[in-house]
Amino acid sequence: MINKTPLRPIDSISMTDRVENILREYFEDNGFKPGDSLPGEVEIAEKLEVSRNVVREALSRLRMLGIVESKTRRGMIMARPDILGGLERVLNPYILGDKTLQDVFEIRLIHEMGMAEFLFARKTEKEILELEEIVVSQKSIERPTKEEEIRFHTKLYSMTGNETFKRFQNMLFPVFDHVFTEYRNGEEITPPANHVHHDQLVEILKTGTVHDFRKAMEIHLGPYFKMINV
Amino acid sequence: MINKTPLRPIDSISMTDRVENILREYFEDNGFKPGDSLPGEVEIAEKLEVSRNVVREALSRLRMLGIVESKTRRGMIMARPDILGGLERVLNPYILGDKTLQDVFEIRLIHEMGMAEFLFARKTEKEILELEEIVVSQKSIERPTKEEEIRFHTKLYSMTGNETFKRFQNMLFPVFDHVFTEYRNGEEITPPANHVHHDQLVEILKTGTVHDFRKAMEIHLGPYFKMINV
Repeated sequence: MINKTPLRPIDSISMTDRVENILREYFEDNGFKPGDSLPGEVEIAEKLEVSRNVVREALSRLRMLGIVESKTRRGMIMARPDILGGLERVLNPYILGDKTLQDVFEIRLIHEMGMAEFLFARKTEKEILELEEIVVSQKSIERPTKEEEIRFHTKLYSMTGNETFKRFQNMLFPVFDHVFTEYRNGEEITPPANHVHHDQLVEILKTGTVHDFRKAMEIHLGPYFKMINV
Repeated sequence: MINKTPLRPIDSISMTDRVENILREYFEDNGFKPGDSLPGEVEIAEKLEVSRNVVREALSRLRMLGIVESKTRRGMIMARPDILGGLERVLNPYILGDKTLQDVFEIRLIHEMGMAEFLFARKTEKEILELEEIVVSQKSIERPTKEEEIRFHTKLYSMTGNETFKRFQNMLFPVFDHVFTEYRNGEEITPPANHVHHDQLVEILKTGTVHDFRKAMEIHLGPYFKMINV
């Protein structure tokens, strides 16, 4: 006897996925630019021979990402997406896998080590002064609080002059903190005696080289680099 | 005479945005984990007192991001999103702004400079051999093709042992290439006489230090660093 294939419901989810992919490819292959008028829901549904509900869902996804936008009188147009919008929505430590959380933790370290060229190329006296104020306002140089750490490093990201990098790196903080907190498991991590503190990083930024800075940053981040599985 | 407020259509787009945000916050605040059962479309619509269409659209967005998943018999469950899914969908050079494209270009450089610690911590003999094979197969050591460049650097990303970083960096290539092509504007960029080639990077990876490697990588990427506006 021949195996019978059971009757299954038509998979409307994967139909929406398909329409979404087709539309993104169509926009990219035709070089649509922000502001360009797009065919409407009815026209897309007719051309693709799918239901309007499926097209509406697919367009809603693209609208969320900022790829398309609906204008009251002009219908739908191409838009300029926020490059980090999709990433921001999924950075929930409870739903990401452990391996991904560890990856994100490491990417923060890669960023901190990699940004030195940009700091030295773009630093201004005004920003160095602001960085110094942040350090002076710390209750303790040896033991900054989490908030003081975030203020100092956020200022550094901002000094790279790269707005996307700064936003991206700030999004990683909660995940980074989550991984570090799980790892510490309630214990305090004591930095070694030769630890580099924020004041020394600022001094090198003022008078040292990009290579000095990176060596100092590597020591500053030492307690985190210890968590890297080899 | 009093100014009259005109009758406007109820903004169904922003209603979907609101439901999407409410659901994401609800999942995160209640610590929902992948596999957990979620209330269905009808129940959500009733609790939030909104139409089922709005809820269906919001759920379709979350399904696209991989935050929720529909199971034939179990209804809707929490899922494990692909952290880079949203980013991947918007990396279309035609729709991103020039400033964002430049930011992405720079982030690739930050990554290349920042990953050295991970390369040295995790390199294996097997991977070094594979890297050497890639270099040997280049038609020219001084002038690798774009494909040869991508093969070499992709192997390096892979050697960091960080799958998210590798995928992320590979996604940036087309944008990086787009920015560089626009910048060159048809002209060939001649590397300087002291340029560091792939074979030298491999040699340092075998016998040098992380600091040597980074100095060499900085020279290797020199033609790109020249494009950085200060």
